[in-house]
Amino acid sequence: MNTVTLDDIERIALGAGILGTGGGGNPYLGSLHLRETIRQYGPARIVDPHDLADDALVPLCGFIGAPTASVEKLEAGTELIGALRLLEEHVGRPISAIGIAEIGGANSLAPLVAGIQAGLPIVDCDSMGRAFPELPMSVFFFQAGVPVTPLAMVDAAGNSAIIPYTVDAKWAERLARTLATSMGATAGLAGSMVTGAQVKQYGIHYTLSLSKYLGQRVLTAQANGDDVPTVIAQTLEGKIILRGKITDLNRRTTQGFARGTLTIESFGGQDQLDIEFQNEFLIAYLNGEVVATVPDLISIVTDDSGEPISTEVLRYGMRVAVLGIPASPALKTPEALAVVGPRAFGYDVDFQPLPGGCIGNKPETNG
Amino acid sequence: MNTVTLDDIERIALGAGILGTGGGGNPYLGSLHLRETIRQYGPARIVDPHDLADDALVPLCGFIGAPTASVEKLEAGTELIGALRLLEEHVGRPISAIGIAEIGGANSLAPLVAGIQAGLPIVDCDSMGRAFPELPMSVFFFQAGVPVTPLAMVDAAGNSAIIPYTVDAKWAERLARTLATSMGATAGLAGSMVTGAQVKQYGIHYTLSLSKYLGQRVLTAQANGDDVPTVIAQTLEGKIILRGKITDLNRRTTQGFARGTLTIESFGGQDQLDIEFQNEFLIAYLNGEVVATVPDLISIVTDDSGEPISTEVLRYGMRVAVLGIPASPALKTPEALAVVGPRAFGYDVDFQPLPGGCIGNKPETNG
Repeated sequence: MNTVTLDDIERIALGAGILGTGGGGNPYLGSLHLRETIRQYGPARIVDPHDLADDALVPLCGFIGAPTASVEKLEAGTELIGALRLLEEHVGRPISAIGIAEIGGANSLAPLVAGIQAGLPIVDCDSMGRAFPELPMSVFFFQAGVPVTPLAMVDAAGNSAIIPYTVDAKWAERLARTLATSMGATAGLAGSMVTGAQVKQYGIHYTLSLSKYLGQRVLTAQANGDDVPTVIAQTLEGKIILRGKITDLNRRTTQGFARGTLTIESFGGQDQLDIEFQNEFLIAYLNGEVVATVPDLISIVTDDSGEPISTEVLRYGMRVAVLGIPASPALKTPEALAVVGPRAFGYDVDFQPLPGGCIGNKPETNG
Repeated sequence: MNTVTLDDIERIALGAGILGTGGGGNPYLGSLHLRETIRQYGPARIVDPHDLADDALVPLCGFIGAPTASVEKLEAGTELIGALRLLEEHVGRPISAIGIAEIGGANSLAPLVAGIQAGLPIVDCDSMGRAFPELPMSVFFFQAGVPVTPLAMVDAAGNSAIIPYTVDAKWAERLARTLATSMGATAGLAGSMVTGAQVKQYGIHYTLSLSKYLGQRVLTAQANGDDVPTVIAQTLEGKIILRGKITDLNRRTTQGFARGTLTIESFGGQDQLDIEFQNEFLIAYLNGEVVATVPDLISIVTDDSGEPISTEVLRYGMRVAVLGIPASPALKTPEALAVVGPRAFGYDVDFQPLPGGCIGNKPETNG
């Protein structure tokens, strides 16, 4: 994949919505900005991670905040480019390419907007291989030891902040989250400068291509009248955990996160699935037994058309299919699980990996 | 005054405590750091505001946060120098001298510590002529139009943040306050770079000298057995509003501020004084009638020895004298009152100026 054009947006938004596991911001709203930007300035340039120079400087970009707020307060479209310029000025060295912090939801599209605005290519890669709620949940931090700071943040009004240094990653997350909350619950963020060599060694590769490929498979299945949830499960080497109706939903936006619990009853009424979320879906219990755990992806799509459903648009009565998708191997090491495993989120549950998985591999076609 | 030596600390802390009108941090704790720093590195160098070069660069320094927290969480002693270095690096130009953001309480002493550590003189001047709870309450902002940003903040652990730009001063205050709260309720802050020319034209001059002079007068009065509250009132051209006992106190630390109300009954029992505070004492009602209003200074001292009492050490049963002290004329203009008058603090009360006043004048002796 060398470019992202107008034709690609819908596919990427669809695929990224599924990989977002409920988080990463609403992909439909994210796609509006990208569409307008491509229309005005032309396609986004995409660079293969292996084509980066070893000393290339790549900041990770995305919006930080509660996805519930991103629906109510639209982006200005200048947050990420503002944060990138602030970060570049702060470190005093030119940025080579734009990194995608998380591939999920709107956060897979927003860096493309910033790349076009900055005249820089976007790397076909991300730092999470899905969406996660916290900044240190990045392979560059827990595998490569790259600090989360410096961070630059800009909000829709133009207010700006830099976090040059914190004593540890938890403090960086805490201060950035506090600022985002104060900035009206969302802000554009650029930070954690990684090198080309680090992108090649540690990044989760080809996730932008994978989003597009997945989105294309969904569109084709919809056009052919195939069962879309089944096609998604096949494409990502995952499985369908349950199909049914949302019968209970408990949601609150606190401390910059959208947290809650969700209950789905199977259409026959014989099974019940309970899901806990914190921006993203984290743990699924089928009839009281754990069946999927973070970092594996728990994704919810509409039962009929396989459209991804993010946490902020969940509502009572929706007919859905819940998918379990094996995470990238980079998220399953002991160092990774200490940061992104169930216990890191406060659940007294061991990680129970789903078998197989293809996130991080080059998809079979770039369509 | 050319230096601040060990002998000066007690006098300055006393005077600054009175000018702090209940806020600015506990001057006793602030004086411990200054004593240790002077002992180790020698006296602080003081520069007359009129001796600054017009193009001198002067950041304003102080701690931001709730004074209640500063009693529980001691300073590391590296916060302000950390913030100064961060700011200097951010603006990319060398700092010429250290500015005192507010003359009240510990915040009049902390910049002296930073000046000694940085090898820079401290200007005999401040930006408020008292203590105030918010950053934009500075003559450089509301008289000279100098933005409150850029701001640099460092906490006791070494966590750091920069606020390069905000759309207005309210946003700067909001983001800095949020960060301070997240940083454990207090942080060292340097910001709002002013020039030597601006210091000369707009600063409230000789307030460090005034603190020392006032402190000396208190010590002399104590030694001579004179009535200390009367001496304070005479020195600052103010008046004693009431002498009595604290009979009610309502205090809470919210959103980075120590807020509350306080009731004092006169010793005879015939009069009642109610005071509202928000880090500093803001409005005094004698038997229900307004008798003193911010920006005029309302200071509370012990009735017998005239020692200043800050909001965080107030307690039921204390025997106190309450003083009303006319503010510097720079705080009484329409532009100033829009920011520091009673209505700016949410009170439906007009400013009722106390007559006279000497804050901002060179005290008759530098003794």
